Amino acid sequence: MIQTPYYLIDADRLRQNMAVVDRLRQASGAKALLALKCFATWPAFEHMRDHMDGTTSSSLYELRLGREKFGKETHAYSVAWPDHEIDEAVGYADKIIFNSTGQLARFRDRTGGIARGLRLNPGLSTSGFDLADPARPFSRLGEWSAEKIEAVLPDISGVMIHYNCENADVDLFERQLSEIEGRFGAILDRLDWVSLGGGIHFTGEGYPVDRLAARLKAFAAAHGVQVYLEPGEAAITRSATLEVTVLDLLDNGKQLAIVDSSVEAHMLDLLIYRQSAKVEPDAGDHSYMVCGKSCLAGDIFGEFRFAEPLKVGDRLSIADAAGYTMVKKNWFNGVKMPSIVIREPDGSLRVAREFGYGDYASSLG
Amino acid sequence: MIQTPYYLIDADRLRQNMAVVDRLRQASGAKALLALKCFATWPAFEHMRDHMDGTTSSSLYELRLGREKFGKETHAYSVAWPDHEIDEAVGYADKIIFNSTGQLARFRDRTGGIARGLRLNPGLSTSGFDLADPARPFSRLGEWSAEKIEAVLPDISGVMIHYNCENADVDLFERQLSEIEGRFGAILDRLDWVSLGGGIHFTGEGYPVDRLAARLKAFAAAHGVQVYLEPGEAAITRSATLEVTVLDLLDNGKQLAIVDSSVEAHMLDLLIYRQSAKVEPDAGDHSYMVCGKSCLAGDIFGEFRFAEPLKVGDRLSIADAAGYTMVKKNWFNGVKMPSIVIREPDGSLRVAREFGYGDYASSLG
Repeated sequence: MIQTPYYLIDADRLRQNMAVVDRLRQASGAKALLALKCFATWPAFEHMRDHMDGTTSSSLYELRLGREKFGKETHAYSVAWPDHEIDEAVGYADKIIFNSTGQLARFRDRTGGIARGLRLNPGLSTSGFDLADPARPFSRLGEWSAEKIEAVLPDISGVMIHYNCENADVDLFERQLSEIEGRFGAILDRLDWVSLGGGIHFTGEGYPVDRLAARLKAFAAAHGVQVYLEPGEAAITRSATLEVTVLDLLDNGKQLAIVDSSVEAHMLDLLIYRQSAKVEPDAGDHSYMVCGKSCLAGDIFGEFRFAEPLKVGDRLSIADAAGYTMVKKNWFNGVKMPSIVIREPDGSLRVAREFGYGDYASSLG
Repeated sequence: MIQTPYYLIDADRLRQNMAVVDRLRQASGAKALLALKCFATWPAFEHMRDHMDGTTSSSLYELRLGREKFGKETHAYSVAWPDHEIDEAVGYADKIIFNSTGQLARFRDRTGGIARGLRLNPGLSTSGFDLADPARPFSRLGEWSAEKIEAVLPDISGVMIHYNCENADVDLFERQLSEIEGRFGAILDRLDWVSLGGGIHFTGEGYPVDRLAARLKAFAAAHGVQVYLEPGEAAITRSATLEVTVLDLLDNGKQLAIVDSSVEAHMLDLLIYRQSAKVEPDAGDHSYMVCGKSCLAGDIFGEFRFAEPLKVGDRLSIADAAGYTMVKKNWFNGVKMPSIVIREPDGSLRVAREFGYGDYASSLG
């Protein structure tokens, strides 16, 4: 039995998402690029590569990973490029997307060999979190002004507009896209491609994929552009768990189960956004607060119900642990970093990476 | 010039803190153990080793790092030990401190060769953050019940009581310690050692070190115990900066400066506790919101004043970047991980660690 903690990526689950991605690409004509900022666990790419058109990135290292480990079309975006990275970035990228007209001007002469784009900030967002809202006041993410964008149209062939966040509401998507067309239509008409970014939860249960596809197809036709989507969470949703073991049980007014992982170290977004993890089926007569083993008082996965009383040594699965977890795991408290394990389509488990003391020590010197 | 971003640890500043640690140790008789959960950058240990008595830890890996890289006395605490780590832990530790009587019972027979302790939760705290408050409702951190602790006194020689958090108020410290003596005095009298944990901000400017020392000395004498302190932040406060470079400047209603770092990736606690970074002297006529380069909308270091307008290429120092930064840095967005650089007492800069693409890729597979 593989030692916990480990992230367990289920190739079959991944392929279920990929089937929806395929359906959307075919019906809409849009291309789908994996957003590496959400999921960059490259040993799983072999289960995704045939169903997506490439990757998009937020930094030089993500860009290079996309180029070398995923291949196909490779988009390079960064909030800001330093001078010393730009030539290397051009070497990996099919398209480079600047965050500001200032960056575009600075690097125009060094990026002539590939397609260039600009991030457009439409002033809209579906995020319920201020922290994650690209339309927040004074946001640095993209150019807001249609005038400034029009002035640089000769230097770009497309724009990236990332404004959705776990948006499962296709009515809202359609309404906001129409708003964007209303305000920026004259720009869109003069472009070759438009990326609508990520954050559309089209692999969710019951999502009307065909309606989304039709809307994207109409958008592409209306403006004469190739549409790109950049799914992150949608591509990998519900495809991984974090496998942990109960190490201790306490009764401190509630029943507490301490497991061999840590929210802050291994599922950081739960802490940042103060959300509960998911454990399934979360049913039964025995309720426990499942806690991590770091020194942080608030290292708590959540409160869940179980059919039987928990015992030391029991294994638990924290659900939905693929997105924004492995990409930001860290060595807080020196808690053992979870291995990365893939359940292959034939049911076998492949340990893609284990982390040990040497990795921990070398993170600090 | 060393490429940014990098953490710059100043050995002279570290030695200023160490001088206070020495003074406290000498005047109080207390021993001081570095809390590795806060700072474990071992290339800097040579500037600390002669002024502290050893290390304390929160996991097997921290424990081993303390033993191998710092040496001297080595305390092993963990919220929960798994069975398969306990023998190795005993091999590194001088004392092992359990978080619960359950863990103590489970591992009593395998830890007979070293001193054993228990974490006592006094139900008090100085933390203003619920997340970091070990006395929060249902806290899993330590045993709350004097009765349960009394029952296991034959199996332990000491307790660890960690309840302070950046406590710069010596009156509050004295009052709370007296409260603890009132409630747990009968237990303390039967022990050989008591660790009062970390969180006492005794290296802060104007802190009455001698008064703290006298109180600790009286406490030790009253109960016949060796007192330990476990400074983390106090040991390294104000000894490091995060050195960054301005990559882009935007005017989006405010003046924004984007730098080649990220709060989430490199100074995570600012994000978790929603605090502003510090830039010194933070004075002048030109105000900027300094932002990171990750895709996170809220990746903001804070708003600071500067004497001159900023230009692309300017270097900025984010102050007070030693504690809880390097130990939890991560590869979010693939943003280049800051190098670790030490300014030696002779003024020379020593690059102790650089991180590259290989480190990033190998964090994921």
